[in-house]
Amino acid sequence: MTLVTFGEASLHLAAPDRERLVTADGLRVHVDGAESNAAVAAARLGVESVWLSKLPDSPLGRRIAGTLRGHGLDADVVWADGGERQGVRYFERGSDPRPDVTVDDAAGAAVTRLAPEDLSVDRLRGAGAFYTTAATMALSRDLVRTCATLLATASNAGVRTAFGLGPRGRWSPEAARETVRDLFSDVDVLVARESDVRAVLGRDGTARELAHALATAHDFERVALTRGDRGGVLWEDATCHQRAATETRVVDPTGAADAFAGVVLARTMAGAGAAETLADAVAAETLARTVPGPLSTATAADIAEVVARMDDERDRRSQ
Amino acid sequence: MTLVTFGEASLHLAAPDRERLVTADGLRVHVDGAESNAAVAAARLGVESVWLSKLPDSPLGRRIAGTLRGHGLDADVVWADGGERQGVRYFERGSDPRPDVTVDDAAGAAVTRLAPEDLSVDRLRGAGAFYTTAATMALSRDLVRTCATLLATASNAGVRTAFGLGPRGRWSPEAARETVRDLFSDVDVLVARESDVRAVLGRDGTARELAHALATAHDFERVALTRGDRGGVLWEDATCHQRAATETRVVDPTGAADAFAGVVLARTMAGAGAAETLADAVAAETLARTVPGPLSTATAADIAEVVARMDDERDRRSQ
Amino acid sequence: MTLVTFGEASLHLAAPDRERLVTADGLRVHVDGAESNAAVAAARLGVESVWLSKLPDSPLGRRIAGTLRGHGLDADVVWADGGERQGVRYFERGSDPRPDVTVDDAAGAAVTRLAPEDLSVDRLRGAGAFYTTAATMALSRDLVRTCATLLATASNAGVRTAFGLGPRGRWSPEAARETVRDLFSDVDVLVARESDVRAVLGRDGTARELAHALATAHDFERVALTRGDRGGVLWEDATCHQRAATETRVVDPTGAADAFAGVVLARTMAGAGAAETLADAVAAETLARTVPGPLSTATAADIAEVVARMDDERDRRSQ
Amino acid sequence: MTLVTFGEASLHLAAPDRERLVTADGLRVHVDGAESNAAVAAARLGVESVWLSKLPDSPLGRRIAGTLRGHGLDADVVWADGGERQGVRYFERGSDPRPDVTVDDAAGAAVTRLAPEDLSVDRLRGAGAFYTTAATMALSRDLVRTCATLLATASNAGVRTAFGLGPRGRWSPEAARETVRDLFSDVDVLVARESDVRAVLGRDGTARELAHALATAHDFERVALTRGDRGGVLWEDATCHQRAATETRVVDPTGAADAFAGVVLARTMAGAGAAETLADAVAAETLARTVPGPLSTATAADIAEVVARMDDERDRRSQ
Amino acid sequence: MTLVTFGEASLHLAAPDRERLVTADGLRVHVDGAESNAAVAAARLGVESVWLSKLPDSPLGRRIAGTLRGHGLDADVVWADGGERQGVRYFERGSDPRPDVTVDDAAGAAVTRLAPEDLSVDRLRGAGAFYTTAATMALSRDLVRTCATLLATASNAGVRTAFGLGPRGRWSPEAARETVRDLFSDVDVLVARESDVRAVLGRDGTARELAHALATAHDFERVALTRGDRGGVLWEDATCHQRAATETRVVDPTGAADAFAGVVLARTMAGAGAAETLADAVAAETLARTVPGPLSTATAADIAEVVARMDDERDRRSQ
Amino acid sequence: MTLVTFGEASLHLAAPDRERLVTADGLRVHVDGAESNAAVAAARLGVESVWLSKLPDSPLGRRIAGTLRGHGLDADVVWADGGERQGVRYFERGSDPRPDVTVDDAAGAAVTRLAPEDLSVDRLRGAGAFYTTAATMALSRDLVRTCATLLATASNAGVRTAFGLGPRGRWSPEAARETVRDLFSDVDVLVARESDVRAVLGRDGTARELAHALATAHDFERVALTRGDRGGVLWEDATCHQRAATETRVVDPTGAADAFAGVVLARTMAGAGAAETLADAVAAETLARTVPGPLSTATAADIAEVVARMDDERDRRSQ
Repeated sequence: MTLVTFGEASLHLAAPDRERLVTADGLRVHVDGAESNAAVAAARLGVESVWLSKLPDSPLGRRIAGTLRGHGLDADVVWADGGERQGVRYFERGSDPRPDVTVDDAAGAAVTRLAPEDLSVDRLRGAGAFYTTAATMALSRDLVRTCATLLATASNAGVRTAFGLGPRGRWSPEAARETVRDLFSDVDVLVARESDVRAVLGRDGTARELAHALATAHDFERVALTRGDRGGVLWEDATCHQRAATETRVVDPTGAADAFAGVVLARTMAGAGAAETLADAVAAETLARTVPGPLSTATAADIAEVVARMDDERDRRSQ
Repeated sequence: MTLVTFGEASLHLAAPDRERLVTADGLRVHVDGAESNAAVAAARLGVESVWLSKLPDSPLGRRIAGTLRGHGLDADVVWADGGERQGVRYFERGSDPRPDVTVDDAAGAAVTRLAPEDLSVDRLRGAGAFYTTAATMALSRDLVRTCATLLATASNAGVRTAFGLGPRGRWSPEAARETVRDLFSDVDVLVARESDVRAVLGRDGTARELAHALATAHDFERVALTRGDRGGVLWEDATCHQRAATETRVVDPTGAADAFAGVVLARTMAGAGAAETLADAVAAETLARTVPGPLSTATAADIAEVVARMDDERDRRSQ
Repeated sequence: MTLVTFGEASLHLAAPDRERLVTADGLRVHVDGAESNAAVAAARLGVESVWLSKLPDSPLGRRIAGTLRGHGLDADVVWADGGERQGVRYFERGSDPRPDVTVDDAAGAAVTRLAPEDLSVDRLRGAGAFYTTAATMALSRDLVRTCATLLATASNAGVRTAFGLGPRGRWSPEAARETVRDLFSDVDVLVARESDVRAVLGRDGTARELAHALATAHDFERVALTRGDRGGVLWEDATCHQRAATETRVVDPTGAADAFAGVVLARTMAGAGAAETLADAVAAETLARTVPGPLSTATAADIAEVVARMDDERDRRSQ
Repeated sequence: MTLVTFGEASLHLAAPDRERLVTADGLRVHVDGAESNAAVAAARLGVESVWLSKLPDSPLGRRIAGTLRGHGLDADVVWADGGERQGVRYFERGSDPRPDVTVDDAAGAAVTRLAPEDLSVDRLRGAGAFYTTAATMALSRDLVRTCATLLATASNAGVRTAFGLGPRGRWSPEAARETVRDLFSDVDVLVARESDVRAVLGRDGTARELAHALATAHDFERVALTRGDRGGVLWEDATCHQRAATETRVVDPTGAADAFAGVVLARTMAGAGAAETLADAVAAETLARTVPGPLSTATAADIAEVVARMDDERDRRSQ
Repeated sequence: MTLVTFGEASLHLAAPDRERLVTADGLRVHVDGAESNAAVAAARLGVESVWLSKLPDSPLGRRIAGTLRGHGLDADVVWADGGERQGVRYFERGSDPRPDVTVDDAAGAAVTRLAPEDLSVDRLRGAGAFYTTAATMALSRDLVRTCATLLATASNAGVRTAFGLGPRGRWSPEAARETVRDLFSDVDVLVARESDVRAVLGRDGTARELAHALATAHDFERVALTRGDRGGVLWEDATCHQRAATETRVVDPTGAADAFAGVVLARTMAGAGAAETLADAVAAETLARTVPGPLSTATAADIAEVVARMDDERDRRSQ
Repeated sequence: MTLVTFGEASLHLAAPDRERLVTADGLRVHVDGAESNAAVAAARLGVESVWLSKLPDSPLGRRIAGTLRGHGLDADVVWADGGERQGVRYFERGSDPRPDVTVDDAAGAAVTRLAPEDLSVDRLRGAGAFYTTAATMALSRDLVRTCATLLATASNAGVRTAFGLGPRGRWSPEAARETVRDLFSDVDVLVARESDVRAVLGRDGTARELAHALATAHDFERVALTRGDRGGVLWEDATCHQRAATETRVVDPTGAADAFAGVVLARTMAGAGAAETLADAVAAETLARTVPGPLSTATAADIAEVVARMDDERDRRSQ
């Protein structure tokens, strides 16, 4: 079964070794995108993962496609003229109490002028799931229309649809709220950071309460909320499972929440139960924080090992 | 005496060690701008050099200003909101017969929305010279207006004005031609690559013929044309001086023509004769090709040493 | 139409910056294999390229697959136990008169225990061409058998077969000679270095004479011989085309002859004429020498530009 | 209002990535000096900061000046002959329980032969404050005389004077004690590490007690003592304010105490109250520990964010 | 007095900066071997340390010898043909909860075909101690025989013999158990990780109990067990000393247990008491964890400083 | 037979990748000394090579010793207090016409206070040759005395003595001339750059004439002059052999003339004829130019290969 994703991807240029962007002499090159990150995390678990997008036919655009293919994606790209923009994200890793800094420069990228009719929707047919996010929609009116169309098309075709709520700072919470709510009727699985739920949907309460409220209000199949280093919750069938994370030495948090999303999707598609899905997703997010760059390298074996270790810790603590 | 320059500057992100942008894992960070490059070259010769521009108040914009100050410029910057764009140039050094590759992503940068009235023209008063280029004008209508206004203001204030002809691929020759010709009445010193003169002005002939034709048509004080690794010519008072370059092991050609321009300005301001000005400018351009990145590091002593060496070579050859 | 290749691939660990293996503190990681290099060169021209092989299911083996996928291959891999060996090639770039040094450590790699029956031959069906080389065969008796079987199977199935003659120092010329001659009846296109033809087949004469002799003796469809920085020849239909190379600043010669092979295959599959095929292959090999590492990054546009430049040079010289 | 500083600056050569000097193959280049570090920290807050010193007119000396200008200083340098020495500090970052290691090689640097009469004291006129330290004085008799003369001149000219007590291991506590006490009558603001006060002045007691004793004994306007990762105290008008630091992941402690000093100066010059000055200085020192190299990159906004975070923590703890 | 060691050494290729082997673009080159690591740790304390082994006469083999000589060993090497294999260990540093990963590729290395008769045993004469380990024996039958012969020869010659128990994952515990027990009659000092004792010898109990049981069963002179970050125990004369380790920021754990072994040997040879030997060994192991790569850089002074610090901590805690 | 050398060694800190010292962000660490470079070149040919010197007992001094041991020297060092200076040489590789730049900072290093009586002269007894140079003598009066004493002692003990003439810019030619001439009665073999002979000895003529004049004036056994990339001459027994060098792609010229000296010594000690000695020395110098850093890595096999290649070229040219 295939996971089809659609979204924007940027060059991710990171200052090395806790240096600051204002003085760093070199930048490490990665690739970052909410949907492609999730698709890579799923592909590492053996899921056939397709990524639909638009890139300039320039060394920068071809690099994006090459890197994602090297991480296992079937990158099905509409190639724009090489003179169009490739989005960039500059990243500076902080060190407590100095926060991480991101400079987002994706506005006007080639992908922002992708209309629904530029894509063949054939790839959706027979897919196991479809995934897109507010981070992509937030970039242009064209992308709002394209994401909405793809969700509706997938939903009508009987494909399980999933949506990532976080706008990555590209939309104000108010702008996001208005647009994303309209989509929820076409969405089966909602994945989000707890903090984005509060901000975008303007809701209060514990993670469990938020998941429950969302699920019942919009009739979702599953709602998976990551709480970062505090673990996550997963709602299904009126039950909300909760899972803590183990203590982690964070190397780079970029893309960790997307790894959570990707594993939720992969495990949901494989028919895994809610508790197992959540445990694997929390472990994958934890592992993603220990690796430089936004792309997950965690295999099923890596995840199983961390899940077992977390179970052990929990058992020890509960004794 | 002060050299005042106005122009756009980009982050210059270069793939290291002859790697290609499509696969390089890291990028070296430099700063690149036609006018700031020239101003740095002049500052290295002891000229007080001012650079006027607009930058986003972000780590990227602050980095541009910091690097240029570290290379000796008085960077007098209008700070835009930190959310505005910072232009970027990606660079891949070729290796014969593989050509150098540049991906220019300066469109929409904060500076492109700089109107003449955003700048105080006080800095022009009493300046020894003012310099701007078509590469900056080519970025927006606002910048066409700002460059033209500054040239006119300087000219009216009795400041020697200089103009760099090359649009750096941002304008078609036709677009450039139309606009820059209108400015020539306000320009005293024209600096250009020989190839840009041919392309932009649509003229034929040898470098000497081009310089002569331009000078007489527009009543320039000096016309300095660089021919790259073949040296350059400098027209003054109806005489056109010519100078060959010594053979060079090119490390990075970026910014070399701007170093030529900067030294033409510095030596012209200092009242140096045409032959001496040309010799120093060709030497500075040659040296700039031997150093990574767009910014000249050549001191007066470095240049004098190369000029002497070139003179020796010429003498030997002419024996 | 699909190009199917079969062969061994090694980690390629290269000392950086002209350092020597005996003192280098770091090594750059690439992937190197005669067939995968050729397949990548073909993929860059838009040919659907499959690479069949066996790798250990370890971080090293997965890295090989990931890198090749990132360069556009469909890597169809038999996964061996993670405890099996991954072959390595250590490489030290020389500087005249200091020669390049290679330390080959592929003996006993997982792939050397790949028997014909471990592979599904389905991938051959309907393929446009099949390619393997003596460098793979030289590693084990199993691989001799597997390569021979695949060539025979392809040939029987009406797939155009191509063979690379060079054993990469893994076989003595005598050992190679004996084995490879037996295969020639199943081979349509022979690709080789001129020097390997002399050494392995023990023949004398000019490149043209060698190509002609081989083609007529073994009834090949095409014989393409690269002469390195001196260009190459391509024999077809009793005519031997010759092409010189342009002067090149060599960054890294690794994999250049494989790029020649890959482009010969791609262009042959596309029905290109002999002269055009040769011109593109020589250009691709030339470009491959200007890039670090064994994998070609040359697009069709890159190659066309160099071919045009070489044509210009030739025209100028012949005037 | 301008902050004028005078002092020695060294190349700071640091082993990367927790490597040891005895084996590191590369060194990162920074610039380090007690007064220039403080001046940079003040400049980042918008204070016009002048640094007076002497450097050899060599690539090393010019590099020091360039780097400091790039970080915002007005570097007003007496240029010595290029053959004179440039001081160096080698630095090895430890990892608990392995301590940091510094090898100081500044003895005999060009600056050590700077007599008071080599400097124009014009820069002091109208300055908002003047700052120098025992680390500079400790390098030569000439520098003792120069620092003392500058402090006296500033004091006589009505400029607020500030002094940094720490000799950076260049003086024995006894040697330092004798000399620095003579200066205290010309000093308005004393800045020091708590540990240096104990060692140099041979006093016991808590930080508050030390600050109080010093202030009353020498009639200082302000005494600011940093306690490193435990925060600091600031005495003014018979009141001693105290501030704890938030927990920090230390990347590089070099220059952190100087950032504390620089912010004490900047805020004192701006007329900030004692509590506010101390809070900002502790935050700046904390941030300086999270960045590689001795130079502060903390803007006013960065500092305000950390102060707010520390206030929040304190509030939470006190609930 | 001389410490003679015999054992295998591999190239140690480590992914930098917490990157993973599956994606790292570069590898850092170190040298790793249980006995050579121990010999280097001893040499840093001033012990004349000999390392006997076999290496291919290739750049790789010569590099191993050069690096070990640079760290103070007298490397007395049997040079094999340059075409033979040099063993390699690939290493990926984890980040909690992601574990460290090692890929061991030493099988078939030149050293594995070293028979006892290839070595001159003259180096053993008059030696202060001889040391070898199960990690070397586990590589081949030849090496089992060579290690056993050397232990017996040394023992018969009255040289104190020491043995390291850990097979480094090259032997199953069962395979190791059988072989190593046969040697114990020739061993005076046993050094091991607590965990290896449990696994290899199949014993339970606390570290103290294990040491005691081993010592009495096999009549060892000393048994030194490291417990990693929890310190270690040392049994002598029916008394088992115990020592905790101070908290450590682990940079790279590779080779730390070997540093423990090396210091146990150095201090035992120097006649140091059990408590002092253990304190120094625990301190050396702690320091080795704070440095990249497997080779100890800790001098006697470094160790004394950490021992003093640990004593202070203990005193403070016990107050 | 042992080669004993005495001399100064510095840290050699080189800007990477053709960057300039004025802007390079990192420096590569090497070790450089006229005598230690020569001793390393000899050791690579299998000569037992001793290096006598004095170093500070600091991480920097220990690093010098470790690196030289790693390159095969028996480094017999007088350890000075860790607070004494370690000499440094900063190096910037040029690119034609930009020259290489060296900043020498060895004055006042610990070794400059080494008196003859600090060294045991036992190492000279039975040595095959002794070597020191003017570059060491030029650093202090103590070193003049020490070098002269060692030469005299060696000469009296019947040890062949060799002297390197070049002061490395540390002495004016006049200062050097006066001192070194006094030593010539104790010198058997003189090694020098042709240019140093002209400068230091104030002589004119071709290299052959210079060698002849020196040899007859001072009764030298051999005089070996390197002419850099133009080869060298070697005078013995009234005959002056000459040898051209092959064309070389120069990576780093540092230490190349010392490699020439080291091979002259090694081959002279081994009784090689003049022509063979010269051919090997020119080849070694040529190879040294192709490797980063001052230390030769050329084995006897490397040299033989280049000699054969040069012979071939000569034969071809002479046909």
